[in-house]
Amino acid sequence: MSASAGPQDRFVVGVDYGTLSGRALVVRVGDGAEVGTAVHEYKHGVMDSVLAASGRALPPDWALQDPEDYRDVLREAVPAAVRSAGISPEQVIGIAIDFTACTVLPTLADGTPLCELPDFAQRPHAYVKLWKHHAAQRHADRINAAAHERGEPWIGRYGGKISSEWSFAKAWQLLEEDPEIYHRAQRWIEAADWIVWQLCGSETRNVCTAGYKAIRQDGRYPSADYLAALDPAFADFVSKVDGPLIDLGACAGRLTAQAASWTGLPEGIAVAAANVDAHVTSAAAQALEPGRLVLIMGTSTCHILNGDKLAEVPGMCGVVDGGVSPGAWGYEAGQSGVGDIFGWFVDHAAPGAGSHEELSRQAAEQPVGGHGLVALDWWNGNRSLLVNHELSGVIVGMTLATRPADIYRALLESTAFGTRMIVEAFENAGIAVTELVVAGGLTGNKLLMQIYADVTGRPLSLIGSAQGPALGSAIHAAVAAGAYPDIHAASSAMGRVERGVYLPDATRAAAYNALYAEYQQLHDYFGRGGNEVLLRLRAIRNATQLEAAMA
Amino acid sequence: MSASAGPQDRFVVGVDYGTLSGRALVVRVGDGAEVGTAVHEYKHGVMDSVLAASGRALPPDWALQDPEDYRDVLREAVPAAVRSAGISPEQVIGIAIDFTACTVLPTLADGTPLCELPDFAQRPHAYVKLWKHHAAQRHADRINAAAHERGEPWIGRYGGKISSEWSFAKAWQLLEEDPEIYHRAQRWIEAADWIVWQLCGSETRNVCTAGYKAIRQDGRYPSADYLAALDPAFADFVSKVDGPLIDLGACAGRLTAQAASWTGLPEGIAVAAANVDAHVTSAAAQALEPGRLVLIMGTSTCHILNGDKLAEVPGMCGVVDGGVSPGAWGYEAGQSGVGDIFGWFVDHAAPGAGSHEELSRQAAEQPVGGHGLVALDWWNGNRSLLVNHELSGVIVGMTLATRPADIYRALLESTAFGTRMIVEAFENAGIAVTELVVAGGLTGNKLLMQIYADVTGRPLSLIGSAQGPALGSAIHAAVAAGAYPDIHAASSAMGRVERGVYLPDATRAAAYNALYAEYQQLHDYFGRGGNEVLLRLRAIRNATQLEAAMA
Repeated sequence: MSASAGPQDRFVVGVDYGTLSGRALVVRVGDGAEVGTAVHEYKHGVMDSVLAASGRALPPDWALQDPEDYRDVLREAVPAAVRSAGISPEQVIGIAIDFTACTVLPTLADGTPLCELPDFAQRPHAYVKLWKHHAAQRHADRINAAAHERGEPWIGRYGGKISSEWSFAKAWQLLEEDPEIYHRAQRWIEAADWIVWQLCGSETRNVCTAGYKAIRQDGRYPSADYLAALDPAFADFVSKVDGPLIDLGACAGRLTAQAASWTGLPEGIAVAAANVDAHVTSAAAQALEPGRLVLIMGTSTCHILNGDKLAEVPGMCGVVDGGVSPGAWGYEAGQSGVGDIFGWFVDHAAPGAGSHEELSRQAAEQPVGGHGLVALDWWNGNRSLLVNHELSGVIVGMTLATRPADIYRALLESTAFGTRMIVEAFENAGIAVTELVVAGGLTGNKLLMQIYADVTGRPLSLIGSAQGPALGSAIHAAVAAGAYPDIHAASSAMGRVERGVYLPDATRAAAYNALYAEYQQLHDYFGRGGNEVLLRLRAIRNATQLEAAMA
Repeated sequence: MSASAGPQDRFVVGVDYGTLSGRALVVRVGDGAEVGTAVHEYKHGVMDSVLAASGRALPPDWALQDPEDYRDVLREAVPAAVRSAGISPEQVIGIAIDFTACTVLPTLADGTPLCELPDFAQRPHAYVKLWKHHAAQRHADRINAAAHERGEPWIGRYGGKISSEWSFAKAWQLLEEDPEIYHRAQRWIEAADWIVWQLCGSETRNVCTAGYKAIRQDGRYPSADYLAALDPAFADFVSKVDGPLIDLGACAGRLTAQAASWTGLPEGIAVAAANVDAHVTSAAAQALEPGRLVLIMGTSTCHILNGDKLAEVPGMCGVVDGGVSPGAWGYEAGQSGVGDIFGWFVDHAAPGAGSHEELSRQAAEQPVGGHGLVALDWWNGNRSLLVNHELSGVIVGMTLATRPADIYRALLESTAFGTRMIVEAFENAGIAVTELVVAGGLTGNKLLMQIYADVTGRPLSLIGSAQGPALGSAIHAAVAAGAYPDIHAASSAMGRVERGVYLPDATRAAAYNALYAEYQQLHDYFGRGGNEVLLRLRAIRNATQLEAAMA
């Protein structure tokens, strides 16, 4: 940890709930020093093939979790982090959490998860649907079609498409496939808000997930008329999600005696409004000012940007008033495969060609355009701008002289081109992007970072923490505890960023303009109807695999 | 060797001049049994970076040979083959050779190569320009442009494009870059014809190379008017190539005393008209009947087809009256990368993914379309139908689940789609293709062979010899020696083929129709002007490489 703690210091705890584990981080309120951390892995992990309680197989594309695993993070990781910090629990003045999203579950009116009722323990639909539960695509398709048909005002706020990952699609799948559970569910709640409920004993809804994942815009959820058009039985769904809405950084309540006993923290300390892992990283990276585009780069990339006005940006995931911090319009976009693609290449496509480090070293020696390649970075589909998970990857320009480092570099570049498409979509909509601020596991690849600066023609800053989301949550906890007047002030004091670590080189940037023009043309050809070969090949592949599975 | 030889048997020798070595094969006249063989590697190999005699660097894309290396094949490989056959040289009644083409050299009127004159030994342009000397592209471009402008009648016989590899382009490069050598050259001759000249002491020109490589059509070479339009100094070029033209299978002359002393063969035996390695394979594979498309599949594929009428087939390399056997129109087409691409993948793209055998085994388990991929097989450019060596390879459809065997299979399939494009170009021009007859190094890959049958929907036969060109030359030698009345009769008696070894499967063929339709659409988009991204990427790559070389 980066600093020693004195007995007079005050601290906050940020808890980052990831896909496989939860991490607690103890942070000093005065300067954001990270003084202790601990990780707890979920006992049930991701249930994507078998439901643990029944031993029964799950259908394809399902992904469930057990909410008790989340409570275990409070019981295990939080006390362990405090112990590792060497501080007294009494020095902790607040706690905040961030979560994957949309990760959502059905509960009773008192917050009891339906999967914890003995009658429902063996029913898959009673469990938490993890963000990457992808079995509600047909529901999302109908949600989108109906929204466009009826001209629903909110659809443009989501780049024209609601994802199958989000709250309404998952809830409608529940209604259609297990109506008993649906009707028994008095509340349908993000795991983020549910954990806050567990901590402070009262239900709240944070504006971030309400806006990005539950279609809350201009103070309203989708109308009962619209929902009835989808399915009359779905008309009153909003009654399950509507609840006390609170801003980010607000105090959701006070730590209950029970939660104090789980965490070892003092009863009555502030519990902040819940947040999403990507969005909360902006505070940690001192990137709340309009124009600072945060890229959380790991297996995929999430782009978070505050803007000072509302615009409807094609292909973005969503824009929410106060969705990142109060007083600004928070924009989200994403690339569904980034580090995953590089990992695929090293582990599966060219397993004997060398490590990431070796390939990066070789690739770094090349001039821009020296490999003669352009790739479309759609190995895991395309989120922004095309919002189509059935798209796939393309490489053009290979010759007998092409070597693995050439392809590796082309893949790095392709994801940078994908980010530039997003940057330009914002700029074209009148939302400035002046700087990239990068967080996440890929910040260590210097070649990749330089490519992003050169391709986008913008200075690139790096977050100064390896635990961006947990640090961001800790910053929110400090605000909720009253240590700072708002998230901006807390971010300035506690966040960490190195500015302008990579600057665009004019010569390389100019050379990349030519390659980017090729990327754009291929992007539109393969992604915007010029040739739907990728979708047809996916359909053929899926059909043959289904046939093989049936045989 | 496949049969024992008796003292009463008569034999012929076929000599196949390849890129790096020459092979002599002793064949029994009665039944084509291959009874002895030997290989001699060229001492100077391919001179593509340095001219041996001067130690000086050669420009990019050059490829030269030393004609003395060809004589060494006569001195070394022929006697060794006869010895290995265990026959008496007196039992040999004829000799024939085949060669790579267009491989061409300047000589004096008596056949002395200019590079053998002391004054010219250090001048690169005095040497043999090997088929893959690619430094005359700008000359070929101007040859083609002028031909189309002037409406020259012969241009359609070459699919609309004369290759930079061919005789006129190479000669014009000589004229422009070393006019002294050009003017000193009294003869400009295919190495094939030059070796026959060395054997029998008299100059002849075979109809095959005259037609395919030196633009001889309807009894004429290009007109002096046309050549003067290219360059007035080039107007009389035809005087250097016009010579006694002889049909394939004809006797070019009798073995001289000197050639007898080189080869150990009897003076006075028949020397057949020279031939080209690919074309002569048709006789070895009993594939002279119209409709039997011979594929000589190695690093690249050459397609040879006899037709009973003349048609101008877009993108074919050429059509020549009697170019494969007298009395038929011989068609040639080609794919410039086939085995090279598979080798690239195994050796360079996925070096740890397994051998050809292992990848083929894994790929063979897949249903058609199961990998979700389509590739364009242009790693080494596209000869037929597009005649563009600046094109490059494309793969579409990759996902995080794509594995090396998937890509390997897609590459095999892409070359089969390329062959189907050629087959359909012939059929659309009214030239039937009823059967594929495959020769060359790739015949051993069962998966590849089955894919070709399935993709083209045609039965696939295999040549019964591992030395197709040398066996074909031996067959021609037997005709020249009068042992058979014509090439057809000799081919029937001495050639070997297994018919219908692979038959198309109706289900797989139907599934491939869908993938082939995707290939066609991508082929036209990337190859016929829809998006010239491949050409632009190549230009960028070449420019950056040039810049790096200059730095």
